[in-house]
Amino acid sequence: MPLNSIRIVLVSPLYGGNVGSVCRAMANMGIRDLALVDPQVSDWREAEVMACHAGDILANRKTHPTLAEAVADCVAVVGTTARQGLYRRHAKTAREWAPDLLALAGRGPVALVFGREDRGLLNEEVLICTHLVQIPTDNAYSSLNLAQAVLILCYELFLARGSYEPLTEKSTLAPAEMRAQLERMWRQLLLDIGFMEQEKADHMMAGILRVFSRGALTEDDVNIFLGIARQADWARRFQQR
Amino acid sequence: MPLNSIRIVLVSPLYGGNVGSVCRAMANMGIRDLALVDPQVSDWREAEVMACHAGDILANRKTHPTLAEAVADCVAVVGTTARQGLYRRHAKTAREWAPDLLALAGRGPVALVFGREDRGLLNEEVLICTHLVQIPTDNAYSSLNLAQAVLILCYELFLARGSYEPLTEKSTLAPAEMRAQLERMWRQLLLDIGFMEQEKADHMMAGILRVFSRGALTEDDVNIFLGIARQADWARRFQQR
Repeated sequence: MPLNSIRIVLVSPLYGGNVGSVCRAMANMGIRDLALVDPQVSDWREAEVMACHAGDILANRKTHPTLAEAVADCVAVVGTTARQGLYRRHAKTAREWAPDLLALAGRGPVALVFGREDRGLLNEEVLICTHLVQIPTDNAYSSLNLAQAVLILCYELFLARGSYEPLTEKSTLAPAEMRAQLERMWRQLLLDIGFMEQEKADHMMAGILRVFSRGALTEDDVNIFLGIARQADWARRFQQR
Repeated sequence: MPLNSIRIVLVSPLYGGNVGSVCRAMANMGIRDLALVDPQVSDWREAEVMACHAGDILANRKTHPTLAEAVADCVAVVGTTARQGLYRRHAKTAREWAPDLLALAGRGPVALVFGREDRGLLNEEVLICTHLVQIPTDNAYSSLNLAQAVLILCYELFLARGSYEPLTEKSTLAPAEMRAQLERMWRQLLLDIGFMEQEKADHMMAGILRVFSRGALTEDDVNIFLGIARQADWARRFQQR
């Protein structure tokens, strides 16, 4: 059941009512795993009221200090964005991604990540994401309420499940933690070899991770690119001129 | 513009917050005509707060004593229902109806009718409807919040309209020749840094190209990875030990 592997991750939500409404929307679409990153909620009563008959999802929520920890075991990390900046250019719509995300969810936990009500996701949080999803809206008012955004994604996955067929690929998908290691090692190497300057590093790493994340990276894939970084570092240090 | 002919009709809504959230959801999907039938709302302040930047839709709402009056000029009246009783058996999903409803909206006003938060539509109200629509939900919790139900219908109409254009990448896709150059340069580099032996090179390059080719590579993408190969080669030759 791939929907059991879908995790809704709310980054620093501000309002209890929104968190409760998210729980109800999740329950409506058969998704039950809720994680909060550093929540700023003061009124949890409001969350319980709005959760309505989905209080169990609220009660069973996990809380983490950082996004990296909330998604450490996830084979795909799906960021939601309304903005269209540099880091967000390869976003697809919820409907376009849904079949891919369900297929991934058959192979490990998949996180759907939603930003703060007022500011969305920060660029450093977007860098953790393997997929970016956009919800089509009218240009005149593109900012969806948090629970509404969660509903649309859950709804698309719920409907896409109708035609879900499990993938046959054997190898294990790389968890977020392993991909983070890949990002760190490559960033360091590319700085060390003088490929990029420190102030351009985020930008360049976004371009590189974008390529790595076009498909699901397996552990084998990641190991290859970790090995390349190690060997290139060795070569620059010790190889004969 | 068929969305201009879509009217959202709320029958006896109880909570101002829901009415406000409905306004915001409508604005997000470019639908602006709101009618209320015999509203039971006591707290209109709450409606204004939840409408957020869609206060004009709230302010311009029409109020009618009966459903019949609210839909008198409509060429189609679409009732929403979670229940599956006798009157409701011919319901289709929002996605199934969306193209038909848009076509009708090109010919006159189309009402989407939503019942009370606690009891939905009464049977006599269902009889006024020309179409019945159901939103797919998990059997364990099928009752959607009012604004959530409105959002799903508006979203399906918005997408069916087809005018939304998904983000497209600006940059040119890399031609085969450029990808071949990428393969050659990386192969040479990985041999030079001692990452792989000559007899394993084909196998290893296949693994690497597999990752590069999961999505369509743009010229920008390829240029990044060509640059990395050049710089790593420079570093292994000339960088300080």
